[in-house]
Amino acid sequence: MARFEGALARASARVGLVPAAHAEIISRVCERAQFDAAALAREGRAGTLAIPFVKQLTAQVAAVSSEAARHVHAGATSQDVIDTGTVLCLKPACARVAELTVQLGNGAAELARRHAATPTAARTLLQPALPVTFGWKAAVWLSMLARSLAGTRNAASSACILQFGGPSGTLSSFGERAGAVMEALAQELGLPASWVPWHSARDRFARLGAELAILAGVAGKIGRDVSLLMQPEVGEAAEAAKAGRGGSSSMPHKRNPALSMLALEASQRAPALAATLLAQLTPEHERGLGQWQSQWFTLRELVCATASGTSAMADALEGLEVNVKAMRANLASLLKDQPQDAFGAAGAMIERALGEWKAATSPGTAP
Amino acid sequence: MARFEGALARASARVGLVPAAHAEIISRVCERAQFDAAALAREGRAGTLAIPFVKQLTAQVAAVSSEAARHVHAGATSQDVIDTGTVLCLKPACARVAELTVQLGNGAAELARRHAATPTAARTLLQPALPVTFGWKAAVWLSMLARSLAGTRNAASSACILQFGGPSGTLSSFGERAGAVMEALAQELGLPASWVPWHSARDRFARLGAELAILAGVAGKIGRDVSLLMQPEVGEAAEAAKAGRGGSSSMPHKRNPALSMLALEASQRAPALAATLLAQLTPEHERGLGQWQSQWFTLRELVCATASGTSAMADALEGLEVNVKAMRANLASLLKDQPQDAFGAAGAMIERALGEWKAATSPGTAP
Amino acid sequence: MARFEGALARASARVGLVPAAHAEIISRVCERAQFDAAALAREGRAGTLAIPFVKQLTAQVAAVSSEAARHVHAGATSQDVIDTGTVLCLKPACARVAELTVQLGNGAAELARRHAATPTAARTLLQPALPVTFGWKAAVWLSMLARSLAGTRNAASSACILQFGGPSGTLSSFGERAGAVMEALAQELGLPASWVPWHSARDRFARLGAELAILAGVAGKIGRDVSLLMQPEVGEAAEAAKAGRGGSSSMPHKRNPALSMLALEASQRAPALAATLLAQLTPEHERGLGQWQSQWFTLRELVCATASGTSAMADALEGLEVNVKAMRANLASLLKDQPQDAFGAAGAMIERALGEWKAATSPGTAP
Amino acid sequence: MARFEGALARASARVGLVPAAHAEIISRVCERAQFDAAALAREGRAGTLAIPFVKQLTAQVAAVSSEAARHVHAGATSQDVIDTGTVLCLKPACARVAELTVQLGNGAAELARRHAATPTAARTLLQPALPVTFGWKAAVWLSMLARSLAGTRNAASSACILQFGGPSGTLSSFGERAGAVMEALAQELGLPASWVPWHSARDRFARLGAELAILAGVAGKIGRDVSLLMQPEVGEAAEAAKAGRGGSSSMPHKRNPALSMLALEASQRAPALAATLLAQLTPEHERGLGQWQSQWFTLRELVCATASGTSAMADALEGLEVNVKAMRANLASLLKDQPQDAFGAAGAMIERALGEWKAATSPGTAP
Repeated sequence: MARFEGALARASARVGLVPAAHAEIISRVCERAQFDAAALAREGRAGTLAIPFVKQLTAQVAAVSSEAARHVHAGATSQDVIDTGTVLCLKPACARVAELTVQLGNGAAELARRHAATPTAARTLLQPALPVTFGWKAAVWLSMLARSLAGTRNAASSACILQFGGPSGTLSSFGERAGAVMEALAQELGLPASWVPWHSARDRFARLGAELAILAGVAGKIGRDVSLLMQPEVGEAAEAAKAGRGGSSSMPHKRNPALSMLALEASQRAPALAATLLAQLTPEHERGLGQWQSQWFTLRELVCATASGTSAMADALEGLEVNVKAMRANLASLLKDQPQDAFGAAGAMIERALGEWKAATSPGTAP
Repeated sequence: MARFEGALARASARVGLVPAAHAEIISRVCERAQFDAAALAREGRAGTLAIPFVKQLTAQVAAVSSEAARHVHAGATSQDVIDTGTVLCLKPACARVAELTVQLGNGAAELARRHAATPTAARTLLQPALPVTFGWKAAVWLSMLARSLAGTRNAASSACILQFGGPSGTLSSFGERAGAVMEALAQELGLPASWVPWHSARDRFARLGAELAILAGVAGKIGRDVSLLMQPEVGEAAEAAKAGRGGSSSMPHKRNPALSMLALEASQRAPALAATLLAQLTPEHERGLGQWQSQWFTLRELVCATASGTSAMADALEGLEVNVKAMRANLASLLKDQPQDAFGAAGAMIERALGEWKAATSPGTAP
Repeated sequence: MARFEGALARASARVGLVPAAHAEIISRVCERAQFDAAALAREGRAGTLAIPFVKQLTAQVAAVSSEAARHVHAGATSQDVIDTGTVLCLKPACARVAELTVQLGNGAAELARRHAATPTAARTLLQPALPVTFGWKAAVWLSMLARSLAGTRNAASSACILQFGGPSGTLSSFGERAGAVMEALAQELGLPASWVPWHSARDRFARLGAELAILAGVAGKIGRDVSLLMQPEVGEAAEAAKAGRGGSSSMPHKRNPALSMLALEASQRAPALAATLLAQLTPEHERGLGQWQSQWFTLRELVCATASGTSAMADALEGLEVNVKAMRANLASLLKDQPQDAFGAAGAMIERALGEWKAATSPGTAP
Repeated sequence: MARFEGALARASARVGLVPAAHAEIISRVCERAQFDAAALAREGRAGTLAIPFVKQLTAQVAAVSSEAARHVHAGATSQDVIDTGTVLCLKPACARVAELTVQLGNGAAELARRHAATPTAARTLLQPALPVTFGWKAAVWLSMLARSLAGTRNAASSACILQFGGPSGTLSSFGERAGAVMEALAQELGLPASWVPWHSARDRFARLGAELAILAGVAGKIGRDVSLLMQPEVGEAAEAAKAGRGGSSSMPHKRNPALSMLALEASQRAPALAATLLAQLTPEHERGLGQWQSQWFTLRELVCATASGTSAMADALEGLEVNVKAMRANLASLLKDQPQDAFGAAGAMIERALGEWKAATSPGTAP
């Protein structure tokens, strides 16, 4: 939020609305401003966090120059500073989520390649169906990850933009220089400008929320399969044993699919969080009662959940112990009347999934 | 579902797996096959609808040629015929939703243009904020519709693809001709082929569900604003009076925002339906217990809700009565201490939104 | 809905507001009235289904007596007839759900008793933990069913009440006889009266929705465990084989947990449906825009889903094949270093659960 | 969590399983134990928070007596200490929520009494319907609060119970003394014992979550109505003006319904949080993958949201400014052709609602 206010002062100075010296002072104070979080929480509860925030910031600027202090937050509204502040947090968070997705996808791609010819049983409704290869199974995971990587990046890129409309949304206090301030502010913050303000147009956060939930779901799907394969009665794959992971407080003999559990936890929490974002699209007029505010908590929980699940399965696939022997033995025992080596188009399917992944991760595609 | 089976027979014939004459018989029977829906429901409840469906179809083919009957559904699995059947319904449904979105957006664009200079009060937290123009308000709606139109079309285009994997997902019973059958089948049905089967990869339906919920939310947002403006105490806009719409069973004097109500109804039901689709991403192995099945009901409800809300607001905006005088009068009374004609960048914002809409609806963009 | 209108006429006659002969005519017409559903849908879409419904009913009464026709629906409002009509459907539906719950619980109780001393492995995070008995496992299911039975009955009993407030909610057109008509109407319909109308107080449906979702979840939990035990690699329990159930359209060798799948399907759809009902509590003033209407579809889907899941698991437990030998063998193999017969308080726990079930199903407890 | 471990040591001593002196040491260390939260988070992420917690606690006990340290956590499992710890937080939180509900209900009751004869317009679909009294409107709110108070207390009372089953759920390591330890532990903690453990039976938290969401919805409903009445175009009621509440960071002239906004914020976030709890009922076997863990975050968010909304509206109703003149003036203007004083059974309805509230708050009813 302080970064926004500093950039606003500099942008206003660039178009001649604020003296350069004052902007310089505001900008410098913003870089090292300290806030009393308890006071923010206490006063912010009465309506908007921006009011006590601007008050505290203005006081710190006024301690340097009371004249400069008059320009703090000038022309902006609560939602400008809070939404842009949110975006400045979301952007690196989404970049990190994309990194984790790449790591997870690379793990799946490696399994798809390495086990392209490793026979295993396809299972439908938890019953053995027909033989497939384990690489093909990983390729199905990979195909989802390719779409999720593209979807998350696109949604993040669309959501991580400047919010700037002023109290009415039309930047009215900037008069004819409104557009110029907006472009300068966008440049200062390294965010795309949004000419049409999104104070009451919350679809971009909803779309990002859905993509995050889908990604959490994809990580959960991999966790589902790994945890089922790790049942000792099945024994076809296992998360790597590691000190301090997957133990039990009461049963030292246990080896738990702790990473899969984290991914499934996230996948079970994400859909309803996304639903909250989808349900905030109908605020009253130019700012509604509660829709905007409810997005803060929800986005935080959703981004953290998705990152947690994706990161867990990235770790899990990197160290995954695949028991090729057990796969063959189960197959022979479960599907003894079926041909054990008829994999149809499995090989070609794996190639396609690898191709989709390569396309999704090639340098030109990241926004 | 019968279209799928007919196309499968023809595709199999094209690659030499089924005698052309038999494929011809199956194909013709499929065109006019009749099904006992009650029997399908009764038997389908025991696991999968595809079993009684294939049984009934096979009987009808056998009545013509028992030899042809042996080729019905050959190499396919329940999920191939049900998912592809679903897609064959979804595709025109989504096209219709897109049409309704275009109609709704054109209505918003027309308001944005016509009322680009009509002053009205921006309202935040249901309190008057500052003057804006009504055209600017419509432009904010329009900016969301431009994104929703693109989003819905992309999601529909990604979701409306062939499902074809056979019982294991690898098309194993087609051996080396698997790819050829798939491509031929895709051609026969006019659907893109999906090399990697999506039996257990349900992200595309989740993404489509989220876009539909967002669109329902955007229509609901417009309905929210219209219904608030139509309060007699505000009186700034009204849905057109029309015989048989917006009446009351007990109060003949009433004129209700019946179309806004339909849009808000849909927007209140859509988020949780989308959440159900987002929660079905973690099925067990190659086909899960219930995730796939729960999508049928949910997609049906969600597509219908979205179409209902979008259609209602398309009608509402086409006939919207805008009371320019009341807007000016309220503005003068509510914000008498504010300049009544300082609209900042409103005009430029409207132009941008119209430009985004034009881009979204230009011929080249629809998939 | 016709039952409501007939009862309203009789109730109004009982307090002297409608001539007895006219009430008699209305009442008789209501018993055999026929409605054009397509016209209802077409016209109802314009706002409320009650308007075309009352129109069609009035026409049928007018065909007998135009004077009687003037009294149709007199003093009531749309929401009175639609909500009460909904309740008249919900009441037997909830009674049926309770019956299915009793059947399911009796199945669990029987397993708890029969297998009180059958050793099996407790499994946490899909890994073997320590020995328990299979009867104890069923007792945990049973403890939830006892609470769900009580909860569903209480919620249904609270929700299945008369809606009667007239257009304003105060029954104003009945003047001093308002209370008397309400009591008479409640008697005629066999529903409790609700003095405070619930046009805009929708918590009872929300509470019922939550209980139905919980019950669907409990049935799903049993389905989860049964389907995991039925994995051939585990083989400790199985749904009974039955012609036409659990087969595959492509793999005749398969035996699927088809009933568990139905229960899990319902449990995966119910939470979001309940969330929709929980989200409809904030309508605008005395009747909101869409909150009420969205409950119709949602309650229908939710009741059907819950009944489907409960019924499926009631069937599953009745025929459940428990493989005591496999349980012992797995236990010996999975937990060979653990004492195989240390069940702590398992026996006492089973007794408690059976006692709770007995209390929940004893004659005095059903509302 | 430390309270649980201390009580467990004392309970075990009472039944003779742990030397009294050792229990005394453990108990005293637990009272003042300090934990390294960062280490807990870091290690807990690997599976369960209980492992590093017990490790840190054991070290602190060992610093006093290495022999006592051997008895820390003895016989318990992760879920016992975490669930019981959660319950020990939930219990006072729910008591506080109930207090806030009483305060909110008392405010509504006061309005119902004071304005029993204050005429105002009923509004349906945001259009004037017929005259009612403002007291009657408050009585409808009150009727929901009476049910919510009872519902929340019952659900909290059912959910706030001891969790104690040991690693298998059967308390197997306590042998014949299992029941005695459980009863003693329940006594020590002032919680009801639960003979049947609820490690995998999560319906009680789901039921509590639904009640909290309903209460949040009821507070939101009151906020909805207050915020609509506070529109300056309506002007019939207003939240009390107060320094530092309801202001705007950019428009000093504004007076916002800030408390209603808080209530609506909570009501828009609560349903999906409750849905997450409703969706966690189907864990795998005796402990599932993620269902339990997802409840921690969700319960925290939900309790806080509900308390926030309820508290906000309790404040709002206490200071509510009711503009009786504006109500009469609007009524005369909006419904001039209607009798302005026909309130039917409104008075009797208010009495009933007050009676229900009195019953809900009478000393005997609180669990």
